[in-house]
Amino acid sequence: MEAYLDNSATTQVDPEVQALVIKIMQEDYGNAASLHKKGVEAEAYTRKAKEQIANTLKVEPRNIYFTSGGTESNNWAIIGSAMANHRAGKHLITTAVEHPSVKNTMKFLEEQGFTVTYLPVDENGVVSVETVRKAVKDDTILVSIMMVNNEIGAVEPIREIGEMLHKEHPSVLFHVDAIQAYGKYEIRPKKMYIDMMSVSGHKLHGPKGIGFLYVNDRVKLKPIIYGGGQQKGMRSGTENVPGEAGIGLAAEKMYKNLNEKVEHLYNVKFRLIEGLQKIEGAHVNGKTDRSSAPQIVSCSFEGVRSEVLLHALEDKGVYVSSGSACASSHPSEINTLLGIGLSREMQEGTIRFSFSVHTTEEEIDYTLAALNELLPMLRRFTRR
Amino acid sequence: MEAYLDNSATTQVDPEVQALVIKIMQEDYGNAASLHKKGVEAEAYTRKAKEQIANTLKVEPRNIYFTSGGTESNNWAIIGSAMANHRAGKHLITTAVEHPSVKNTMKFLEEQGFTVTYLPVDENGVVSVETVRKAVKDDTILVSIMMVNNEIGAVEPIREIGEMLHKEHPSVLFHVDAIQAYGKYEIRPKKMYIDMMSVSGHKLHGPKGIGFLYVNDRVKLKPIIYGGGQQKGMRSGTENVPGEAGIGLAAEKMYKNLNEKVEHLYNVKFRLIEGLQKIEGAHVNGKTDRSSAPQIVSCSFEGVRSEVLLHALEDKGVYVSSGSACASSHPSEINTLLGIGLSREMQEGTIRFSFSVHTTEEEIDYTLAALNELLPMLRRFTRR
Repeated sequence: MEAYLDNSATTQVDPEVQALVIKIMQEDYGNAASLHKKGVEAEAYTRKAKEQIANTLKVEPRNIYFTSGGTESNNWAIIGSAMANHRAGKHLITTAVEHPSVKNTMKFLEEQGFTVTYLPVDENGVVSVETVRKAVKDDTILVSIMMVNNEIGAVEPIREIGEMLHKEHPSVLFHVDAIQAYGKYEIRPKKMYIDMMSVSGHKLHGPKGIGFLYVNDRVKLKPIIYGGGQQKGMRSGTENVPGEAGIGLAAEKMYKNLNEKVEHLYNVKFRLIEGLQKIEGAHVNGKTDRSSAPQIVSCSFEGVRSEVLLHALEDKGVYVSSGSACASSHPSEINTLLGIGLSREMQEGTIRFSFSVHTTEEEIDYTLAALNELLPMLRRFTRR
Repeated sequence: MEAYLDNSATTQVDPEVQALVIKIMQEDYGNAASLHKKGVEAEAYTRKAKEQIANTLKVEPRNIYFTSGGTESNNWAIIGSAMANHRAGKHLITTAVEHPSVKNTMKFLEEQGFTVTYLPVDENGVVSVETVRKAVKDDTILVSIMMVNNEIGAVEPIREIGEMLHKEHPSVLFHVDAIQAYGKYEIRPKKMYIDMMSVSGHKLHGPKGIGFLYVNDRVKLKPIIYGGGQQKGMRSGTENVPGEAGIGLAAEKMYKNLNEKVEHLYNVKFRLIEGLQKIEGAHVNGKTDRSSAPQIVSCSFEGVRSEVLLHALEDKGVYVSSGSACASSHPSEINTLLGIGLSREMQEGTIRFSFSVHTTEEEIDYTLAALNELLPMLRRFTRR
């Protein structure tokens, strides 16, 4: 049996999305900038994809810009708005538990003379509105906070932060990394006062190498990639039409019967948590109820190193992640686990299980059985 | 009949490349950064693709970095090296006929305090080594010159410029936009003293949304996209494994029997030129022999506007470009045509025909017949 429980690292591409990608590569391969029919056909896919995405967010298609993925979206939102608004101030706010594509972009801006406040989170990985409020200064131009944490599934109070900023600091821009949230939550950027929002295709059964950035009309933003003026000059480069059509269809499909899908994810999640709680020395990180994201369970196992457990599970066909697989395979920061106050030993024994709509209860039971079989053995080796 | 003669805008994806892309989306969909088998499998595709590309250039795989396409590659090479080397100087050299992804990136750097020299070209679109030599100053850090011009197919003396820089100004970095050259020419970055070289996948029957930058070991380069540290921290973001495998296979296939392919392209090109030269008021731009690129013919037609001719040809199933379709569809610069001294009227009557290995002599004859039928009619309308 196989259980792919690493869907927050990446997902299998939906078969319909695959078929669409291939159709475009084969038949409708024009350059969307070409003036002839093959260009017009290509451009129609691009336009349709923006409409499909805009529909899921109740925004206008003109506010959707395609990028090469979530990382570029985060870079663009943060660097592009910092560069465009630096005369208004050079202070940025984020949290200590953001994805490296936010944190390392912030570090780059620090080198460029910006100052960045990294807000702490509570033991569940959640930042409070009050903490954000207190951090805003006269020269703050941007707040960037993720909606769902990729390591433990903590859900940040985006709506409340958006409302607070809108009421008390209307000139401050609000960027949301929604890479783990989109496709799992109804997100309404207008009602939630989100100015920019990053999404990645391959986290929602769409293709790799494609993402988008939602940018509302009030945002002053500079491009970070210059060229032929595609996408209103905001993101140049020949449009990745198969990728764009792919993420459009994937988005539309994810939001069809969303509630049922989320229910399924929570069923799977709660089943795994229930089993984990019966395992000695297993501690589920963060919240375990519906205030946490439906697709992620982070669990620290006493007396075992995560990489050892990961490879032992792999031998049984169970694929999981240690920390966040979005980061490179190099020894990298485990920010969120540190941020919520885990001891070093517990950090090093942490596994992330992440689900998709295709994850079954059988896979969960199989995974729990594998853990129950493997853990005593691995711990015995570790103790020696 | 259909004749797709817009291959310098984009190409149809090779069927084997399509099959590989789909196989990876379906079966081997792991995140290359994941530690388990699905990650290792994904990473193997990435590694193989770098080897396939490196083989075509006789360089090491470690010097190949994947990007989202040619535009990002050009941006990264220019911005990344300027930012990393600005203490050594702030002067950059390029030509007046570069693609917008080079020219507009240079403009951005001018805003950041760099100075840029835009070198003139001769009536065939060619820059002379002497012109480059004279432009180099004590604070010059980068020379960026395209190998094949995308609008008229002019071939720049890259090897000679590389040798001159290597001998006389060894500290100056040499970047080559090879987006229209790669897959048509044997390119040896080491022998030609190229430090960085940009390539796009979709120009060589590979996927859209993928490209690469060759970077040799001596180059000091800053990333322009920050994040999880993928690709040695130089280009973060989950690797687009299907795209990477796709461009790798496309590159390998393009360089198989390259000489035969190039011969075929020249046959097609010369057949079109021969026909065009018999048409009254048709002037082929640039060189018409083997010193010009095999896949591009630019022709200015007196007494007709290119867009009108383009749409008339489209009605007959002949797909061509007016100027460069790499630029957006917005009224955009026609740099090269201006650069080679074409009158405004001739610029506005210019069509680019661009071929692939699949272009047939029949398509050329059909296109010429269409032109001979359409031009007298269109000119009659224009005169009214």
